[in-house]
Amino acid sequence: MKTFRVSIHIVPRKGLLDPQGKAVADALHTLGFDAVRDVHVGRHLVIETSAADAHAAEQSVREMCARLLANPVTEDFEIAGVSAA
Amino acid sequence: MKTFRVSIHIVPRKGLLDPQGKAVADALHTLGFDAVRDVHVGRHLVIETSAADAHAAEQSVREMCARLLANPVTEDFEIAGVSAA
Repeated sequence: MKTFRVSIHIVPRKGLLDPQGKAVADALHTLGFDAVRDVHVGRHLVIETSAADAHAAEQSVREMCARLLANPVTEDFEIAGVSAA
Repeated sequence: MKTFRVSIHIVPRKGLLDPQGKAVADALHTLGFDAVRDVHVGRHLVIETSAADAHAAEQSVREMCARLLANPVTEDFEIAGVSAA
């Protein structure tokens, strides 16, 4: 068993309102960053977990996302990377 | 001017307490994911902005992070990627 560091992005589903992103975009406009078109705000998680190999680590983290970390009604998740820790 | 999509990770500074990460790790253990060693929770932002080139887009987003998006006392940020939108 080795330790792997798996990073995940959890983002609001496409087409759903992203009020936090809207608020950030408005604040950036107020600060003078007029070039900003759109902002999406999600979560970035890094999970250190022990597993037999990188594939097993990724599978286990996918299950964690489905069971606890992401809300399937409103959020999508993607595995951004798996590296040995 | 082209549109670029810049993604950012904003994470708690190393060495600072990450109570949200600790809570997620505890919840995963309760669900039976005993292999989990550690969890860090941060934010993942995607900013769509128009700029002359990718380098200018990245510089502009760095300034947004420093001025608004990241708390310099408790958080670090990194540019995870820049792509044409």
